[in-house]
Amino acid sequence: MPTPLEKPRTVFFVSDRTGITAEALGRSLMSQFDGAAFRQVTLPFIADIDKANDAVARINAAAASDGVQPLVFSTIVDDTLRGIIQRSHALYLDFFATFIGPLESELGMKSSHAAGRAHASADNAAYIQRIEAVNFALANDDGVSTRFYSKADVILAGVSRSGKTPTCLYLALQYGVFAANYPLTEDDLTRGRLPEALLPYCRKLFGLTIDPQRLQQIRHHRRPDSNYSSSDQVRYEVRKAEDIFRAAGVPCMNTTLPSIEEIATTILHQTGIKRRF
Amino acid sequence: MPTPLEKPRTVFFVSDRTGITAEALGRSLMSQFDGAAFRQVTLPFIADIDKANDAVARINAAAASDGVQPLVFSTIVDDTLRGIIQRSHALYLDFFATFIGPLESELGMKSSHAAGRAHASADNAAYIQRIEAVNFALANDDGVSTRFYSKADVILAGVSRSGKTPTCLYLALQYGVFAANYPLTEDDLTRGRLPEALLPYCRKLFGLTIDPQRLQQIRHHRRPDSNYSSSDQVRYEVRKAEDIFRAAGVPCMNTTLPSIEEIATTILHQTGIKRRF
Repeated sequence: MPTPLEKPRTVFFVSDRTGITAEALGRSLMSQFDGAAFRQVTLPFIADIDKANDAVARINAAAASDGVQPLVFSTIVDDTLRGIIQRSHALYLDFFATFIGPLESELGMKSSHAAGRAHASADNAAYIQRIEAVNFALANDDGVSTRFYSKADVILAGVSRSGKTPTCLYLALQYGVFAANYPLTEDDLTRGRLPEALLPYCRKLFGLTIDPQRLQQIRHHRRPDSNYSSSDQVRYEVRKAEDIFRAAGVPCMNTTLPSIEEIATTILHQTGIKRRF
Repeated sequence: MPTPLEKPRTVFFVSDRTGITAEALGRSLMSQFDGAAFRQVTLPFIADIDKANDAVARINAAAASDGVQPLVFSTIVDDTLRGIIQRSHALYLDFFATFIGPLESELGMKSSHAAGRAHASADNAAYIQRIEAVNFALANDDGVSTRFYSKADVILAGVSRSGKTPTCLYLALQYGVFAANYPLTEDDLTRGRLPEALLPYCRKLFGLTIDPQRLQQIRHHRRPDSNYSSSDQVRYEVRKAEDIFRAAGVPCMNTTLPSIEEIATTILHQTGIKRRF
């Protein structure tokens, strides 16, 4: 194989909707090429001929200025628009058309070729479910009241900055799951056990832990040179929290390396909680 | 073409990571087949031979019980694991291997074939950026203080339940954008203009509006048979809010039909706000 190109390659994510799916799959593919440099451009809402022509102009301009043809990852559904984009000076990789043919044959149906809906739509019960889940996460983010824990699908417990809040919000937005959030208090850590108020919900608990070094880094960003972000303090808190989870049989995962998406999906997978859409 | 099959088809999303990308593209493709009935199963974290064999067993069991072969949408990266999944009794559609070959040729490199990273990873600055953006959205969700508006990338304004909060959170989680949220108050609506405190940030404002009928439905779900969810009240509020946006030259979009993903992406697209990762 020839040696990797040094010159950054422009990569276009072209979509008739948000481009989120094209970005996710395209980035996953690009992450396989460690030495390569990419400049990423998302072109969302390419939904008519003028916009498709504009997109081609941008792709061709990049081809000319880079001196190397761009990569185009496309989820365009409409045949006419796809035909226009396809004629640009680029390596055109089609995340839609590549699969629609085999699916038509297998299902024995013609596809509708209407612009795709990759995401939960607003015009059905899923929207209200999603909003309710977000509101639940916001209303149960601080551990102040356990009043609504009976409605929770899961209650994430952990020390401050272990990833509870973003994970709860992601569970709500992506899966419609009702996730509450219990920050272990100084008192809990000192006593070395879960508070009485949590015991009725013990089976809904899921613990988040984190490497002390990483926690220190995150807390330092928030409150530099405080006791809160001191090495001794984070080490103490993490150790006590893990002891509490172990003693109470609370399943637990380390959030140091995984992304929020991975943490949320792991929780669903390990607990067997049903997503609500 | 033969007539559509009535029998529900089992669809598997198979991934070595979260399955989120396989689901998004798979669902977009499935949404093209209106008459077809699907039963969806996600098999995430298929990252070793045992798990791959378990996945094959589940796929084959579905084939036997459905009497028709399942669809398998896969983003598996590892060649050995992919080889195992591929031998199941299913229509196997590969979102990874299909494109990696053409990319290797074009880039003149071998790919690393390490399990993909479709999502912002935890081990870099993007994680802290993301958390900061979520915290910003949470701290600026109620319009009580405009103190931090100078730090906002965008300030979403609108009546209660027009979609501000979930959109702000999505902008934070997906794009690391600092989005504040200003709920138009009864006072604002009565006076028919933006409050003085918002004027310095006028160029950061983006209005959300919504069809009164839809708003009534959402509010009714929250507080049935209240003035808050009455037809007259929602109509009044929506009309006044739109007047305010128009008078102040605030760009505005209707959130009735689009998904949260689409609302968030449209805002980025129309305002030109740069995502932070």
